[in-house]
Amino acid sequence: MSKTINIALVGATGHVGEALVELLEERDFPVKDLHLLASSESAGQSLSFRGRQLRVRSLEAFDFTQVQLAFFAAGVDVTRAFHEAVRAAGCSLIDLSAALPLDLAPCVLPELGEGATQGLTAPWQVSVPTPSATACAVVLAALKPLLQPRQVQLNAMLSISTLGRSGVQELARQTAELLNARPLETQAVDRQVAFNVLAQVGAVDEQGHAELEKRLAAELQQLSGLPGLAVGATCVLVPVFFGDSLALAMQSDVDIDIAAVQRLLETAAGIELVEAGDYPTAVGDAVGQDLVYVGRVRRGVSDPRQLNLWIASDNVRKGAALNAVQIAELLIKHYL
Amino acid sequence: MSKTINIALVGATGHVGEALVELLEERDFPVKDLHLLASSESAGQSLSFRGRQLRVRSLEAFDFTQVQLAFFAAGVDVTRAFHEAVRAAGCSLIDLSAALPLDLAPCVLPELGEGATQGLTAPWQVSVPTPSATACAVVLAALKPLLQPRQVQLNAMLSISTLGRSGVQELARQTAELLNARPLETQAVDRQVAFNVLAQVGAVDEQGHAELEKRLAAELQQLSGLPGLAVGATCVLVPVFFGDSLALAMQSDVDIDIAAVQRLLETAAGIELVEAGDYPTAVGDAVGQDLVYVGRVRRGVSDPRQLNLWIASDNVRKGAALNAVQIAELLIKHYL
Ligand SMILES: NC(=O)c1ccc[n+]([C@@H]2O[C@H](COP(=O)([O-])OP(=O)(O)OC[C@H]3O[C@@H](n4cnc5c(N)ncnc54)[C@H](OP(=O)(O)O)[C@@H]3O)[C@@H](O)[C@H]2O)c1
Ligand SMILES: NC(=O)c1ccc[n+]([C@@H]2O[C@H](COP(=O)([O-])OP(=O)(O)OC[C@H]3O[C@@H](n4cnc5c(N)ncnc54)[C@H](OP(=O)(O)O)[C@@H]3O)[C@@H](O)[C@H]2O)c1
Repeated sequence: MSKTINIALVGATGHVGEALVELLEERDFPVKDLHLLASSESAGQSLSFRGRQLRVRSLEAFDFTQVQLAFFAAGVDVTRAFHEAVRAAGCSLIDLSAALPLDLAPCVLPELGEGATQGLTAPWQVSVPTPSATACAVVLAALKPLLQPRQVQLNAMLSISTLGRSGVQELARQTAELLNARPLETQAVDRQVAFNVLAQVGAVDEQGHAELEKRLAAELQQLSGLPGLAVGATCVLVPVFFGDSLALAMQSDVDIDIAAVQRLLETAAGIELVEAGDYPTAVGDAVGQDLVYVGRVRRGVSDPRQLNLWIASDNVRKGAALNAVQIAELLIKHYL
Repeated sequence: MSKTINIALVGATGHVGEALVELLEERDFPVKDLHLLASSESAGQSLSFRGRQLRVRSLEAFDFTQVQLAFFAAGVDVTRAFHEAVRAAGCSLIDLSAALPLDLAPCVLPELGEGATQGLTAPWQVSVPTPSATACAVVLAALKPLLQPRQVQLNAMLSISTLGRSGVQELARQTAELLNARPLETQAVDRQVAFNVLAQVGAVDEQGHAELEKRLAAELQQLSGLPGLAVGATCVLVPVFFGDSLALAMQSDVDIDIAAVQRLLETAAGIELVEAGDYPTAVGDAVGQDLVYVGRVRRGVSDPRQLNLWIASDNVRKGAALNAVQIAELLIKHYL
């Protein structure tokens, strides 16, 4: 890859944005100019990239004809407001906010290799799957030679960083208030999340589903290549700062061969299988890592046709930033 | 109920034991003498009951012929060591530790009413179902006229008080250490549980199942009256002091009628249904309450034949102590 490109990073001052900057440097991505963008409030801050301090600028005034690729990591509203202008400028877009419908911006799983990006035309618009869809899809892809489930059930225990910086601050503040027996104030969430579990992320629709759960199901159907896959999902917020914990169950029509499942997981790309008896955790294993950690591989407790497993994964790094950079690496190989 | 009985309470100084003492008083249980028992370490402490201070005595020296009923809330080993002597003394036993096989000490769900205790003979030995089995069984019982699932999937996010007083102390200490940036020590659990999720409770067997998960499945099969029910269960520990959070999914062969489910839950004994759009939490709703709180009633996100719901329940009170006293109330009505 001798060519280099100009890149815009929208949401540079956020958790995901900062991880993106780090990864572009770490992985020696062929960047020529890197434009760091955020809201006007943080314009003027700076971030270090390849030994230089880069100024953060306001997204509002930015001209996307200067760049060939833009990462969007600044929330749904920002992507929705800008994606048309970005395309009109001839710039490709990798969205991390799950703002665009999957038919407009299909989601891509780098673990599927070059096939993952087939059929896309430049300037492309792609979606980075949500962190728990990524983790599950990596596992489903690994097991595909053995198991094509008819139903999957996911219980995703998401860390508070799912809500960005304000979520992390909220958990820290609430915890300190409770430990010091001060009255509890709530800001980024509407109730106590410290030492508690919140049953949903954001509002739910008439049918009771959160946006995130619907997106997850659609992404899993697309990424697994099983459009008819029945999906049940409950995404909750736990009082954990970083790292997602997932209990995944897959229903098959035949008895599950656990030894064969373990063999596939041991050698799969992107997965670290933790030995039987032990288990991975978000904080102890996954955070800061590029791999999806899998453990507790077993049949349903009284259901031999069910596969249960446990996944710990870094929502900011593997779940978002790394994935986005890996997707960009695949795409530039083909299209630039 | 004009008769009164003598009662022994084993594990009186624990969380569950203290809740039992409170409930026996609150519900005006026909107790004549109450014998509070614990290990020799806490012998000599005292607890208040009906305005008097009762001394805690050592279990070792206790003569069970003095009592007609004994509650055992002091762990698996204590029940296993004493249950035969208790029976030989002609004393009935209500076990809260899940120590006895269900064929020896069937589990009883008070919500099933008088039928729940049919066929038992005095001196009886019964098991109080584990807290999450109780919560799920109450819901399954309420839905029985509409839905007899072929498969249920439970993800139980259990509070650290599941491990008793030492668990509660552990979470408090770990949290304070982390907030004060002191090095983390682990005692009651083998790794960081503050701001983390632990994927299993206790050790797992060769097949990967924890004792608690197997017990839960067996209890659910017995309590639901569906011995062939396929059960998948993942019980994890979350950094919450009190109150369990359960994500429950039930698989049916036909599309789920959500309105009918809601009607049944609204009027069911022992259940508080939270209105659509809102949801209950362990800390905000369930702790200190006698009811099982249910919310997020919905179909699978892409699976109309699945019912998903969310349950918050007090593991110490409804999940253990209240249940035990309700069972005792049913039994003494018939057998004393
Ligand atoms: N956190 C995760 O686990 C995760 C995982 C996958 C995807 N994502 C997605 O990634 C995005 C960022 O998440 P995060 O966790 O990094 O959130 P965050 O820490 O709260 O950061 C949000 C970023 O968006 C910027 N921003 C907000 N409003 C803006 C506006 N009107 N114009 C320009 N920039 C604006 C912020 O800039 P200022 O500093 O100027 O406010 C900041 O850089 C979100 O879409 C999120 O859904 C997050
Ligand atoms: N916590 C829950 O959520 C929950 C729910 C349902 C059932 N349970 C079951 O209820 C039981 C008690 O749980 P917990 O949460 O109350 O635990 P806990 O707070 O740790 O209390 C344990 C109790 O058992 C006593 N004990 C321990 N070893 C003993 C021995 N060798 N001889 C006599 N007494 C002994 C302790 O007495 P000392 O003070 O002398 O040590 C204390 O009274 C356990 O079997 C547990 O599985 C607990």
